[in-house]
Amino acid sequence: MKQCKNISNADIHITGGFWKKWQATVAESSLNAVYDRFSESGRITATELHWRTGDSNPLHIFFDSDTAKWIEGAAYSFYYRKNPDIEQKIEAIIDNIERGMTDEGYFNTYYQTVEFSNRFTVRQNHELYCAGHLIEAAVAYYEATGKDRFLKLMCRYADLIERVFVTDPSAKFRTPGHEEIELALVRLYHATGEKRYLELSKHFIDERGVHEDAYFDFFNFDPRYAQDQAPVRDQQSAEGHCVRYGYLFCAAADLAKEYNDDALLAACERTALNAMTKKMYVTGGTGNMKHGEAFGPDYHLPNFEAYTETCASIAMAMLAQRILNADPDGRFGDMLELQLFNGALAGISLDGEKFYYENPLEQKPENLEFMHACGASSRPIERIKLFGCSCCPPNILRTITNIGRYYYSSDESSIFVHLYGASRAKFNLNGKTLSLTQSTRYPDNGKIRVVISAKEPVQATLAFRIPAWCDAPTVRFKGSIPDRIEKGYAYFDRKWENGDVIEIDLPMRIRMIEANPQVADDCGRVAIKRGPLVYCLEEVDNGKNLADIRIAQYPNFHSHYEKDLLGGVTVITFNGTRREWGDELYREYRPARKKEGFTAVPYYAWCNRGPGELECWVLK
Amino acid sequence: MKQCKNISNADIHITGGFWKKWQATVAESSLNAVYDRFSESGRITATELHWRTGDSNPLHIFFDSDTAKWIEGAAYSFYYRKNPDIEQKIEAIIDNIERGMTDEGYFNTYYQTVEFSNRFTVRQNHELYCAGHLIEAAVAYYEATGKDRFLKLMCRYADLIERVFVTDPSAKFRTPGHEEIELALVRLYHATGEKRYLELSKHFIDERGVHEDAYFDFFNFDPRYAQDQAPVRDQQSAEGHCVRYGYLFCAAADLAKEYNDDALLAACERTALNAMTKKMYVTGGTGNMKHGEAFGPDYHLPNFEAYTETCASIAMAMLAQRILNADPDGRFGDMLELQLFNGALAGISLDGEKFYYENPLEQKPENLEFMHACGASSRPIERIKLFGCSCCPPNILRTITNIGRYYYSSDESSIFVHLYGASRAKFNLNGKTLSLTQSTRYPDNGKIRVVISAKEPVQATLAFRIPAWCDAPTVRFKGSIPDRIEKGYAYFDRKWENGDVIEIDLPMRIRMIEANPQVADDCGRVAIKRGPLVYCLEEVDNGKNLADIRIAQYPNFHSHYEKDLLGGVTVITFNGTRREWGDELYREYRPARKKEGFTAVPYYAWCNRGPGELECWVLK
Repeated sequence: MKQCKNISNADIHITGGFWKKWQATVAESSLNAVYDRFSESGRITATELHWRTGDSNPLHIFFDSDTAKWIEGAAYSFYYRKNPDIEQKIEAIIDNIERGMTDEGYFNTYYQTVEFSNRFTVRQNHELYCAGHLIEAAVAYYEATGKDRFLKLMCRYADLIERVFVTDPSAKFRTPGHEEIELALVRLYHATGEKRYLELSKHFIDERGVHEDAYFDFFNFDPRYAQDQAPVRDQQSAEGHCVRYGYLFCAAADLAKEYNDDALLAACERTALNAMTKKMYVTGGTGNMKHGEAFGPDYHLPNFEAYTETCASIAMAMLAQRILNADPDGRFGDMLELQLFNGALAGISLDGEKFYYENPLEQKPENLEFMHACGASSRPIERIKLFGCSCCPPNILRTITNIGRYYYSSDESSIFVHLYGASRAKFNLNGKTLSLTQSTRYPDNGKIRVVISAKEPVQATLAFRIPAWCDAPTVRFKGSIPDRIEKGYAYFDRKWENGDVIEIDLPMRIRMIEANPQVADDCGRVAIKRGPLVYCLEEVDNGKNLADIRIAQYPNFHSHYEKDLLGGVTVITFNGTRREWGDELYREYRPARKKEGFTAVPYYAWCNRGPGELECWVLK
Repeated sequence: MKQCKNISNADIHITGGFWKKWQATVAESSLNAVYDRFSESGRITATELHWRTGDSNPLHIFFDSDTAKWIEGAAYSFYYRKNPDIEQKIEAIIDNIERGMTDEGYFNTYYQTVEFSNRFTVRQNHELYCAGHLIEAAVAYYEATGKDRFLKLMCRYADLIERVFVTDPSAKFRTPGHEEIELALVRLYHATGEKRYLELSKHFIDERGVHEDAYFDFFNFDPRYAQDQAPVRDQQSAEGHCVRYGYLFCAAADLAKEYNDDALLAACERTALNAMTKKMYVTGGTGNMKHGEAFGPDYHLPNFEAYTETCASIAMAMLAQRILNADPDGRFGDMLELQLFNGALAGISLDGEKFYYENPLEQKPENLEFMHACGASSRPIERIKLFGCSCCPPNILRTITNIGRYYYSSDESSIFVHLYGASRAKFNLNGKTLSLTQSTRYPDNGKIRVVISAKEPVQATLAFRIPAWCDAPTVRFKGSIPDRIEKGYAYFDRKWENGDVIEIDLPMRIRMIEANPQVADDCGRVAIKRGPLVYCLEEVDNGKNLADIRIAQYPNFHSHYEKDLLGGVTVITFNGTRREWGDELYREYRPARKKEGFTAVPYYAWCNRGPGELECWVLK
């Protein structure tokens, strides 16, 4: 098993292009926008612990996690640009946490104001989930600023959790209802070097599905809901609440590497592949069953009812990245890219201030409006600024500010390049420094030039991901092909010198994708992809009744970059047909269809021009 | 406005063919099967009023309606065949009702055993719905047997309801939460001649949507749920709970005729047409939104999630038949036929003992099983013997035993033939008797021979429905074409003599139907119909992944009768293609498809050969 690490934010700089623009948007807009919404909705002041039953802004059990994810995302943004105002706001929150933390080291906004005596008794109350996010925030803030006050507070909290769940067990449940603490504890271990935290994480993984009996009183008490169906190492498939699944196996992948635990890594890969090959939307979205925000039946992938939570795509990206550190396998690299460019990124508006929680693959605004009126759905028609359960906004925020960390895995002698995008990154290989500068307009096109900087020659393996979506890739170093292609990565073993250049070309042919015949909703339909991007049809470009558009036998696909559209996107046009129709609901079939030209735009950018219909799967 | 009546059961005899077989099945199996299930589940003994909180077989607020519908259906069966055993069982129930009825004339199993003091206070508790079904049962039993004990009890009940809601109002709501009493009161008026009952029915219709403020505390308090959104005469569309809508407008259509109320008839037709042209499945099913078992958004017709309740199709058939009495318009005649042969009839197994409540247009048993396990769906995979809310079994039972009443409308000088099927019917036209004998194998084929019997020549208009599904109908009397075709009926004005024969031929070309492009789920797909029957594909005939089957450009449709299949059905075969596929979830589109022959069977007969996939909309 590989023992790679992902690159730290301090060592990578996004120098331009796609993600630089997103980082600017988040730093300039989202950070303040999310803070303001969290402030208005009481999340920030809740950390003062003054809330009392009956006050406005009803407290939610997961408020702390929202605030923590915002802090975490803000901390990452400091690598992009210092922001004293935001830093002051974080310090004020840390003040509250410091003031509010009990002598034993407990901090939870909800329990301390509503039912303190019930802490550590109700498994499904997101308590350790909140703790985990606070820990992640503290680690991120410490790493970005060097300030360790928050980190030390969270160490006290982690110590308490260790006592309550392990040393002197008094908790009324054994493993968290909503996983997150497990992966946070690994990060806390890395930040502090304190191995107890790693062991506590392992404890939660080892206990899960073994002794737990505090099942949830919904989902029909099905233990799959919270991944309780079997010991983690024995789990065969991705089950239950998608975000919980993702966070759990993120920790499992980390621990597999730390403990060289093959069984645990195998469980990560096996369950992730199960999700990827049985119940993942073409956008990367998971949650093919709204009930429980959960993995549903195999091949059941309804497009309108898709419960493809932004957080779930982020969790899958996080999991992919962690698996890649132990096993650089292009299938997970492809999933990482798919999630970041599609399922996750659709969760934020181009102005960075509005968000989607669910990311459907088909939208009919009138239908949703009807359902809103009678309480049949609460999915908003457009992205909105805040949700009652507002986990997704700070999650996509922290993902974008942290994007550099997803680019590379490396150990003492190897660098694995997972993502392409204009950037500069620094690695330490057996004590020698080597930098990689990617120059590219990816994902507008697939040409990437990687230039090496090194004071002295460095012996190392460089491995470049060859996306499965590319059928004519070229990777060249001084005219030579790679030494080998293995599991989707092109390997060069060389002594690298300053100024060495690797030229990569990943031609982005426009591709039509079809789904397994068991996916009833996609039969007779194709999705359009170009490079890493999934495309979609929007009403604003193509009129109504998008589901009736049929791609021509010879579609005459064209792509062109439109700099003024949707913040600059590559647009795809094609020929197709649609039906002309009167008022009737049914009529006898007539083969005649009207020819028309159609336009597809990247899925992540949909619904930035007002609400309207959406369709990802087009008749073929 | 026409003042036709539907034919009474005493005057029509189903002599053979399709419905005769169903009447035999119901008389020989369903009657006892439903009684036994109702007995085991406590519905029958509940009428003894001995149930107490904590007893087994928890009492439901609608138990009385279930029992009543069974009595009603049993009573109709006596026209087919006397059944002393069943009659005795009904008498025993009537004994209980007589014994249990309060001095004021109240009878309700639930309220009298659980919360008597709350009677007439909770609008949504199905109280008047139960009363209405008891009244319908009493009328039917009286008409079939001549015994008036039950009828008189129900008159007392109706008198009480009049006092509580009109004369000396004390009820805590103004109109029923679940309509039914309104149409029952019209029937009670016809059975007794007591006009107060007609006026009470009109009172409930006039009050609805005017003064009511006891809205339901779900469906987001949307008044549409129970058709409260506007005065009945002003309602523009079919809204809310489908069965409630149907029963309400059944009464409205009856009252329109009784009071010659054009505005009321217009509301019936307008709202029914709205349902038929905006939110009705090709099978006739309504309930395109599971939430609230309700009419959903226009053109939103999901096939797997279809909440197409058997009762809703029956209610639409009842409504169609009532509209036809006032306005013989083929659109409603077509709907009547569609519902009876498809949406309604799918609710009962061929052996008559098992039932569907929801009638989906697409079934994936594995998906449903998964959803059952985690509480995401309770729709059974196969028809079952009893539901917690078991309204549908006795409803389809009473519909089949009462089928003759749907055939004709007539007044003093006209007979309108709505349905075709082997039968003999007797009419009284201006004091003269005229009988019509239909000889036909309908719906196996569309040839119908109608022979007239009359002791003396009778001047009358005979009008025969020309189904819209037939594009080459012929209707001939002694070689002559009809005098006129008007709104889907072929009219002959003649002095009819004994032995006159009308020859009708309605060729049943196999037709492919497409849905409006606004119906996203059906785009690129066709439904197969032959005559009045909607066809479907089943796994047992065509293997798995039915949604991926594509009808060939030249399908080479053939139909043939198979007497040993599904109780004798006309089977359709056609050429088509499907994809070959490995394990992957997605792949790049390949045009190649495998040619294969496929078999379609009538939708009503699906799932009588074990559970399996179902598909009504086939790729084209």
